[in-house]
Amino acid sequence: MNKYRVIGIDIGGTNTKIGLVDADGVCLTKKIIKTADYIALESYIEVIVTTVNKLLALFNVEESFKGIGIGAPNGNHYKGTIEYPPNLPWKGVSPIVELLKRHFDTEIILTNDADAAAMGEMIYGAAKGKKDFIVITLGTGLGSGIVVNGEIVNGHDGFAGEIGHSIIEINGRDCGCGRKGCLETYCSATGLINTYIELLKKNNSYPPVNNTIIDSLYIYQQALKGDKLAIEAFDFTGEMLGIGLANAVVYTSPDTIILYGGLANAKEMIFSPTIKSFNNNLMNLYKDKVRIIPSGLKEDDAAILGAASLISHRI
Amino acid sequence: MNKYRVIGIDIGGTNTKIGLVDADGVCLTKKIIKTADYIALESYIEVIVTTVNKLLALFNVEESFKGIGIGAPNGNHYKGTIEYPPNLPWKGVSPIVELLKRHFDTEIILTNDADAAAMGEMIYGAAKGKKDFIVITLGTGLGSGIVVNGEIVNGHDGFAGEIGHSIIEINGRDCGCGRKGCLETYCSATGLINTYIELLKKNNSYPPVNNTIIDSLYIYQQALKGDKLAIEAFDFTGEMLGIGLANAVVYTSPDTIILYGGLANAKEMIFSPTIKSFNNNLMNLYKDKVRIIPSGLKEDDAAILGAASLISHRI
Repeated sequence: MNKYRVIGIDIGGTNTKIGLVDADGVCLTKKIIKTADYIALESYIEVIVTTVNKLLALFNVEESFKGIGIGAPNGNHYKGTIEYPPNLPWKGVSPIVELLKRHFDTEIILTNDADAAAMGEMIYGAAKGKKDFIVITLGTGLGSGIVVNGEIVNGHDGFAGEIGHSIIEINGRDCGCGRKGCLETYCSATGLINTYIELLKKNNSYPPVNNTIIDSLYIYQQALKGDKLAIEAFDFTGEMLGIGLANAVVYTSPDTIILYGGLANAKEMIFSPTIKSFNNNLMNLYKDKVRIIPSGLKEDDAAILGAASLISHRI
Repeated sequence: MNKYRVIGIDIGGTNTKIGLVDADGVCLTKKIIKTADYIALESYIEVIVTTVNKLLALFNVEESFKGIGIGAPNGNHYKGTIEYPPNLPWKGVSPIVELLKRHFDTEIILTNDADAAAMGEMIYGAAKGKKDFIVITLGTGLGSGIVVNGEIVNGHDGFAGEIGHSIIEINGRDCGCGRKGCLETYCSATGLINTYIELLKKNNSYPPVNNTIIDSLYIYQQALKGDKLAIEAFDFTGEMLGIGLANAVVYTSPDTIILYGGLANAKEMIFSPTIKSFNNNLMNLYKDKVRIIPSGLKEDDAAILGAASLISHRI
């Protein structure tokens, strides 16, 4: 019986989630730290090392420890680095794997967070047995992991799969990447918020009463209550996402697109307009061949499982 | 010494080119037939069979004959069919490989014409030794062949790589595929002609004197003569193509994009505005990593060599 354990680390703009995962894909224990609290990369690495050691000690993991998988925005699979991330505290190139290797004598693999999510879906989730699929992560931004013929597409430099930065509207909204009209400026939590605020302004209802803080959860709750502008914001987000996904299909012709992450939790509110627009905008050649479905990973642990699967995949 | 011979067939909307190719990638002899002259698929197959047999007899090719490679628009690599081609006489699904198999006891492989071009570039042309690249064919439409990690991307159904039908302008120009704003409505011979006509109209110069027939060669010659509207038409085509290619990079992160086909023969007239727009619109992550270059195949025989390489690749 191979009762191995791996550590999965999901580095996000807000939280870093560190979990200990067993051979069956169960997250045994986890800890969350606030990424932005660690402006200096050294102090961030220090807290990661301390946390990983604590989790390992908690379960008496010794020989059964098989490695650390890491998912990170702008993660470079080939080099083990995070490069020029717009939403993390450390600018330039951060050699995460090299720095962690000084503390752990084990296999450490880092990749783009969305690629980790795609691997997680293939090993434990909704893409078991699938060979051509795309995972779209809808969070603060829009990330993507593309799988072709059973392999994650890394590209020549390790940075393939940035569908969030395909230009969907020439001279459209300003994007954090410095350009305009990228898909993620419309189809992400940030995009949804901006759309809702635009609609409120058009309707002379901005700023909202009581200075309510508008986040994607608030818009979702408003939409559930029947707030027409909130529903319109979701519809527009789905309309744009459907076009973006119809565009994605012409590249690698997947049979499945998995929507994953915070915004995907809005379920029908986002799936329904997305699928409608997708079908309206899909080239005839691909009609009725592509399913858009939710993640098959347990929500709280999904990103940790994705990161862990980078190691599990090789055992 | 393996002196094998293969037949390469390039099926195009205007011409079908059939060539006999030797082991060194030299096209020994070829014949061109007018595709549109054969409204019935049966008569088209008949002329193909007759022509192939003539070419084989001409060079006394017997045991050394190793197969037939075919590149065709909307070609399905998995099934050997051409499916719903907008610019060919035969509607629906045409089982080309099956029909030819009744006449030839040899290996017959059919694929999308742009995928055949990509294979040709990898075996004989500008992509020798490359593992992540894209070939864009600029003809009547815009085709594409995507190579990831040394393999052509076929997708789950064999129809991956239709970059010409990514939507670049929401509610943009009408496309032959029934939708609007596809990249090929701007970046193809047809797109160039429509852009030039739009510019002539804006300038109250349409129809042109002497009822000149406006094709892409005419626009190119006008541009060479310094016709400002012709130059502007090329600039706009390149501007849109640069955005389309910058979008393509975020999917598979290639290090090379090869422009191939009729419009690419306009050289600097199309390359210069395309590369300028590409660099302006490329996400920072990919800056200075991607070259846009012309085909490395001898122009007249390029499509035949691409088709032939489908067989050569397997020998």
